[in-house]
Amino acid sequence: MTAEEISKAFVQHYYTTMASNREGLMGLYGDESVLTLETSECRGRNQIMEKILALTYQKIQHDITSVDHQMISSDSVLVVVTGRLKTDDDPPNSFTQTFVLRQGSGSIFIANEVFRVILHNN
Amino acid sequence: MTAEEISKAFVQHYYTTMASNREGLMGLYGDESVLTLETSECRGRNQIMEKILALTYQKIQHDITSVDHQMISSDSVLVVVTGRLKTDDDPPNSFTQTFVLRQGSGSIFIANEVFRVILHNN
Repeated sequence: MTAEEISKAFVQHYYTTMASNREGLMGLYGDESVLTLETSECRGRNQIMEKILALTYQKIQHDITSVDHQMISSDSVLVVVTGRLKTDDDPPNSFTQTFVLRQGSGSIFIANEVFRVILHNN
Repeated sequence: MTAEEISKAFVQHYYTTMASNREGLMGLYGDESVLTLETSECRGRNQIMEKILALTYQKIQHDITSVDHQMISSDSVLVVVTGRLKTDDDPPNSFTQTFVLRQGSGSIFIANEVFRVILHNN
């Protein structure tokens, strides 16, 4: 798969799963994964899934504005997503989410992830 | 240097140089660097510097809101910056900029970079 194919398939899968079945994200993280979610840093699948499952919204919807991708090394792809995020009945917020995806044995996992809401208006 | 030290020193140097002396950014790129600037992709120091020097603003000012960093591998650091950007007399825009920094022989260079303005209001 090319970086573009990996990036497209991943983004589709990740945001669909985040909206419909958060538990399903578990397969995307490994023991060495790192997630920065705003000011929290979580390490490893267990800590990351604990954080994700503790998020209190009932509904989440992502409208993706841009997806950029670059190869970092032969087995790693950088993916940068921007868009708008709506949880429950709250007003939408802009967000940016950066992933480093790594190809393992036949599968792809999230090695690094950084999520930030963009709070200031233009 | 720790990832945090690398990240802090880099962010300070990059945005100061971008504002005061764009030519000075040349030392941060190598032949294998990749820059995605909105919808343009540039590869290698020469193409990247051509792009940066062709930007038409006279003055640029970055107000940094967040800087997040994670180790990707023993020689690579992921840095994600969000903030607001003001060029000349235009209204400010939110932006996000992701870097993969790599340690070479005694120096640090930008292996990967993705820049996006966040255009939609909250």
